Amino acid sequence: MKRKVCVVVASRANYGRIKYVMRAVQEHPELELQLIVGASTLLERYGRAVDIIRQEGFEPDRSIFYVVEGETPLTQAKSTGLGIVELSTAFQDLKPDMVVTVADRYETMATAIAASYMNIPLVHVQGGEVSGNIDDRVRHAITKLADIHFPCTEQSRERLIRMGEDEDRVFNYGCPAMDVIANEDTAINNDVMAGYGGVGSAIDWSKPYMLMVQHPVTTSFGDGMHQVMETLHALCEFPDHQKVVLWPNSDAGSEDVAKGIRSFRERGESAGFHFYRNFSPEDYVRVLANASVCIGNSSSFIREGSFLGVPAVVVGDRQRNREHGPNVTFADYTQASVQAAITRQLQARAYEHDDLFGHGDAGKKIAGMLAQIELNFEKGNSY
Amino acid sequence: MKRKVCVVVASRANYGRIKYVMRAVQEHPELELQLIVGASTLLERYGRAVDIIRQEGFEPDRSIFYVVEGETPLTQAKSTGLGIVELSTAFQDLKPDMVVTVADRYETMATAIAASYMNIPLVHVQGGEVSGNIDDRVRHAITKLADIHFPCTEQSRERLIRMGEDEDRVFNYGCPAMDVIANEDTAINNDVMAGYGGVGSAIDWSKPYMLMVQHPVTTSFGDGMHQVMETLHALCEFPDHQKVVLWPNSDAGSEDVAKGIRSFRERGESAGFHFYRNFSPEDYVRVLANASVCIGNSSSFIREGSFLGVPAVVVGDRQRNREHGPNVTFADYTQASVQAAITRQLQARAYEHDDLFGHGDAGKKIAGMLAQIELNFEKGNSY
Amino acid sequence: MKRKVCVVVASRANYGRIKYVMRAVQEHPELELQLIVGASTLLERYGRAVDIIRQEGFEPDRSIFYVVEGETPLTQAKSTGLGIVELSTAFQDLKPDMVVTVADRYETMATAIAASYMNIPLVHVQGGEVSGNIDDRVRHAITKLADIHFPCTEQSRERLIRMGEDEDRVFNYGCPAMDVIANEDTAINNDVMAGYGGVGSAIDWSKPYMLMVQHPVTTSFGDGMHQVMETLHALCEFPDHQKVVLWPNSDAGSEDVAKGIRSFRERGESAGFHFYRNFSPEDYVRVLANASVCIGNSSSFIREGSFLGVPAVVVGDRQRNREHGPNVTFADYTQASVQAAITRQLQARAYEHDDLFGHGDAGKKIAGMLAQIELNFEKGNSY
Amino acid sequence: MKRKVCVVVASRANYGRIKYVMRAVQEHPELELQLIVGASTLLERYGRAVDIIRQEGFEPDRSIFYVVEGETPLTQAKSTGLGIVELSTAFQDLKPDMVVTVADRYETMATAIAASYMNIPLVHVQGGEVSGNIDDRVRHAITKLADIHFPCTEQSRERLIRMGEDEDRVFNYGCPAMDVIANEDTAINNDVMAGYGGVGSAIDWSKPYMLMVQHPVTTSFGDGMHQVMETLHALCEFPDHQKVVLWPNSDAGSEDVAKGIRSFRERGESAGFHFYRNFSPEDYVRVLANASVCIGNSSSFIREGSFLGVPAVVVGDRQRNREHGPNVTFADYTQASVQAAITRQLQARAYEHDDLFGHGDAGKKIAGMLAQIELNFEKGNSY
Repeated sequence: MKRKVCVVVASRANYGRIKYVMRAVQEHPELELQLIVGASTLLERYGRAVDIIRQEGFEPDRSIFYVVEGETPLTQAKSTGLGIVELSTAFQDLKPDMVVTVADRYETMATAIAASYMNIPLVHVQGGEVSGNIDDRVRHAITKLADIHFPCTEQSRERLIRMGEDEDRVFNYGCPAMDVIANEDTAINNDVMAGYGGVGSAIDWSKPYMLMVQHPVTTSFGDGMHQVMETLHALCEFPDHQKVVLWPNSDAGSEDVAKGIRSFRERGESAGFHFYRNFSPEDYVRVLANASVCIGNSSSFIREGSFLGVPAVVVGDRQRNREHGPNVTFADYTQASVQAAITRQLQARAYEHDDLFGHGDAGKKIAGMLAQIELNFEKGNSY
Repeated sequence: MKRKVCVVVASRANYGRIKYVMRAVQEHPELELQLIVGASTLLERYGRAVDIIRQEGFEPDRSIFYVVEGETPLTQAKSTGLGIVELSTAFQDLKPDMVVTVADRYETMATAIAASYMNIPLVHVQGGEVSGNIDDRVRHAITKLADIHFPCTEQSRERLIRMGEDEDRVFNYGCPAMDVIANEDTAINNDVMAGYGGVGSAIDWSKPYMLMVQHPVTTSFGDGMHQVMETLHALCEFPDHQKVVLWPNSDAGSEDVAKGIRSFRERGESAGFHFYRNFSPEDYVRVLANASVCIGNSSSFIREGSFLGVPAVVVGDRQRNREHGPNVTFADYTQASVQAAITRQLQARAYEHDDLFGHGDAGKKIAGMLAQIELNFEKGNSY
Repeated sequence: MKRKVCVVVASRANYGRIKYVMRAVQEHPELELQLIVGASTLLERYGRAVDIIRQEGFEPDRSIFYVVEGETPLTQAKSTGLGIVELSTAFQDLKPDMVVTVADRYETMATAIAASYMNIPLVHVQGGEVSGNIDDRVRHAITKLADIHFPCTEQSRERLIRMGEDEDRVFNYGCPAMDVIANEDTAINNDVMAGYGGVGSAIDWSKPYMLMVQHPVTTSFGDGMHQVMETLHALCEFPDHQKVVLWPNSDAGSEDVAKGIRSFRERGESAGFHFYRNFSPEDYVRVLANASVCIGNSSSFIREGSFLGVPAVVVGDRQRNREHGPNVTFADYTQASVQAAITRQLQARAYEHDDLFGHGDAGKKIAGMLAQIELNFEKGNSY
Repeated sequence: MKRKVCVVVASRANYGRIKYVMRAVQEHPELELQLIVGASTLLERYGRAVDIIRQEGFEPDRSIFYVVEGETPLTQAKSTGLGIVELSTAFQDLKPDMVVTVADRYETMATAIAASYMNIPLVHVQGGEVSGNIDDRVRHAITKLADIHFPCTEQSRERLIRMGEDEDRVFNYGCPAMDVIANEDTAINNDVMAGYGGVGSAIDWSKPYMLMVQHPVTTSFGDGMHQVMETLHALCEFPDHQKVVLWPNSDAGSEDVAKGIRSFRERGESAGFHFYRNFSPEDYVRVLANASVCIGNSSSFIREGSFLGVPAVVVGDRQRNREHGPNVTFADYTQASVQAAITRQLQARAYEHDDLFGHGDAGKKIAGMLAQIELNFEKGNSY
């Protein structure tokens, strides 16, 4: 009997991080992949990541709509509640031997609660990190509900054990998001990029460009519009570079950030800017890998950026306390601070590859462990 | 402006533990009490604790039904999800300055998620304990979502800090459940007791009796019927004592335990047994205080039992790893083991008061701290 | 391509009424049966009809828990809401060509809304009837959402057309609940009956007995306890007959009725009474067919009772305006009125078979029509 | 004791229709207004009608987020389910003597089910109309759940009675949406209009303009983008007129329609067009009253348009079967058909006022009846 490993993918970011684990589970002779897609993966406004997931050979066993519209902390809580209601029914039907959840967002909590309450062993990838915002709470709370942990760095592994998790079920195999980079060509294909549409000035991918990804910060809800406009204005100061901008994810406050972007565009200041909804994880990595500098607060700047050695300007507090490599410099939410940091990074040019986040083989190692680890445990606490 | 302190009470056990905090908040000149009652507090089958709550002078601001029927791990998860959906609306309306949640049950998690996602400071009472079952996960996960902690023992306080909580927001004032004992007369009033109804042989409260409370154990879901019958049969071996039995709470598996009790009754073996649905927290303490021995797995045997020095036989794993005083002995889920432990405890008679769980003044101290503690913090991590 | 016909069964009564349609769909070469079971069919307290459903050869495609506990009108509304949330996900997954719903209870409305909002042709069985209580509203509202109608009597068919439904999609093939009677032996098997357990005096099925089924009446919520006790006391006046009593269904107020029954039992007045949770539809019909008289407010007394010619005393308003055959007499909610009516019916003995509700071949005819009816219609209105 | 009249407003259109009833209830000495706002009234994307509601002197007693994002028939069903879950809690808290719901959209059904299941008298405004699409089902289903009816035309009143509603509780006082027109100045204030923002060419309100409002049609889900672009292209053929376009409401398919509008704008064909999110009901009427012609499928073209005598081109099937006055002409979903119809209407110029939808005093009359009508009825059926 193959072990049924159920992966829940609830956002495009989730997918990029877990894809190589899914692939390795699919290919492992003793494992069977079950896939649930939900929340923003199904929504037009967030680029329907489910379409890319299907194209790449994963057929969802369940598709569940559970985003309560509003994009406030209130509706994030409600979405989590609705997610639990529906995921629990799906788990009952699919009867997985274990459930895999990734990272730290609100939908992740829905998966964690449904699985752990139902006594299904819960596997958590990317636990133990510290970023200095509300995500920390959610991430650590999920840790306490989880049974098997695949943190992505040595510091994270140690923190999980310090938090009381059983050392025998905490494994640092590096971050599966690195597998995307290690396994695929990072050259940009102009035709493929054209297919992503988007709006704004045409991008010539053979010429220098900056990448901007700025998500809303849930603890400073309401400031997103202002914050994103400061960053956009800073970018305007570098007319020699094209600007590639991704719309924000579906966190509380994303409408606020989106409004800032729309307002910026409507004022006609966006010459040289192109705004995209979504890339496949591979194409996203390609865009990141070839950027002169990346600006914003995506954790990919720290993770993939470190692996690739891409100069990164991390704006604001969202990732402030995260473990990071030499490619990262920080800036405040002001045009001046962002502009100064970009200037520094343009001078630095590329950095060396750093293996803080692993070697690009996490997916296979994780699948291997899922096939062999003892599942009949009671969760203890080794304080 | 008074600080609005919103307490969510989701079971009769919750209420017993938090009542003296509610009272102290109500009486504090700088605090205003908001009360939400939900889940099993509203249900006939669990004795409608809301009626007692009202009688004791607390008028709920909101009453929310969110128990999805089924009493399986699946429906516990769904109830939690539904609880989040509705509690978040209530919090938005009531706009509390902080939300107080107690202990470790599934409804507690609903409160914790709704409040913490909405950036409302979350106060957790009874965190940091270890009992060796799934409650540990939920309790520790709530800890990671909470901002201010009132653990009930020194060991718990230390564990919370070891888990990364900020020492400045972790206070051991003892357990507010002890306040009930310290503040009220423990003599039993026969007329009051008669009012609780129930079924079975009449109890003469002036004569020796044993108290049995055996909740379902969520990680061994499905064994509850067998387990409770072993305990019941062990009690039958002590014909000189009357037996006072409480129906189980609304955990997954409670229907299973209830079925065991019903089956036992229907076989006509229950001479000398009386089965009750519910007592007020005060009357429950009185019944406990005057018992020759208490048998089962209620955490009150360890907490209030230790304060009172009542001999306790704790059956099974549910409380196995809990910090406890000298009044506790453990037994397996077999008639023989339970019977032997009861015999030991009947010989031991009463134990000395133990202040492991505080001095009976926790409510006032907690309210005092809630009135003065700085609320404009970001949650950090002191690893 | 077979047409996928999705039947939603949400209570034991639902199942009895639709079973022969399910069977006929299963056996039809051009149809494929999809089955969703939900609500009280999954609950221990209501006899887990799902177990009988499985035994009889139907494997559910989905099992959905959506009863919000409380048994008040409030929780009935909430259960309906939760049912819609989950049924819509199931319909999306199963992609039925049509959805079949039965009768008039609150869960039926959940099915009707989910299907009609999703533009899935909705088939309604047992529409157009009038009973004189809140069920009428729900039943007629479902009619307005439905596309294809299988009313069970000629009067009902005419009423549907008068309400504006398109005559070409309204078919009176009789009631599929009659198929159970027409197709199965009505002799009672003592061994089988013993397997149903229950509590109370042993029943000798070869001797005379009365059958009592009294459901809560949702518009007079709160009176159920009193009402059921009046009926129970009336039955006590006929010591020569054994009494077979079924627990009520999960309507608002059922806990109230159940309390009346429990109270009656605990007072020790129930000599000669036996209380059952549940029968299979076939065994229920057998028990009805062989009763000297049936008392209460089950619509089966009117439907199956008329087909079988069993003397029936219908108590209260719940079925007051229902079309009925000569086997029915009515009584008020008082012991005296019920007692007098029973006396009349005992004198009348058995009645002739009446074909008001069809010939016992409705299931096959309905399945035949579902296989051939045009589905690409827009719902019009023929006022 | 004043009667508590609870009005549920779930969209900006709802508000425009019911506002004068709310006002009249507020001013009536024997009535007390309770207000619940929910669904799209709270959402940025639909112009947050709640802000206008507050500005106009109505303070919501509850604000409930219950739109499940997706804008498909599936998520409409789920939103309805979630609405029922939360509205029922609100009704329990607010304890209204009656609940008022308007028209025919999915949120309206949530109100109708919550109130009628909870035995709260349900008042339905705008029942009995026929428009020839799925709204008919929902509208008529609500009728069958409602107790008191205020249809807006004589034909509608008669249809309700034919459907079996009790004549004594069906009142045609005209449409309360007409009250807005009758009571307020229809002159356009340029400063106020400037405050609505929006995007596109500046509008000079003293010069001729066309008004376009095209909602998605739920039964032809998926065609919205194409349909709206045909209409937009037809408008381009009238360069002498400015074009005022409103974004669609939150029905299933609205994202589809919005995409058509965005695509049209991005192609740079939108010279002379201005796109607005939202107007207050009064300003909307002003814009309608002063338009040379209105184009699309808003029911306001038929209702307010008839009262005002504004030439209207109604596109597609959405309103095809609606009772209408002489001001309406119909067109297909093709540029040619819409263009021809506009040309006809420009030649017709203005029409006479028609009192098909009442005299503009419906709000007061409805409030008057709500204050005096007997509420202790059982719903009967007069077939």
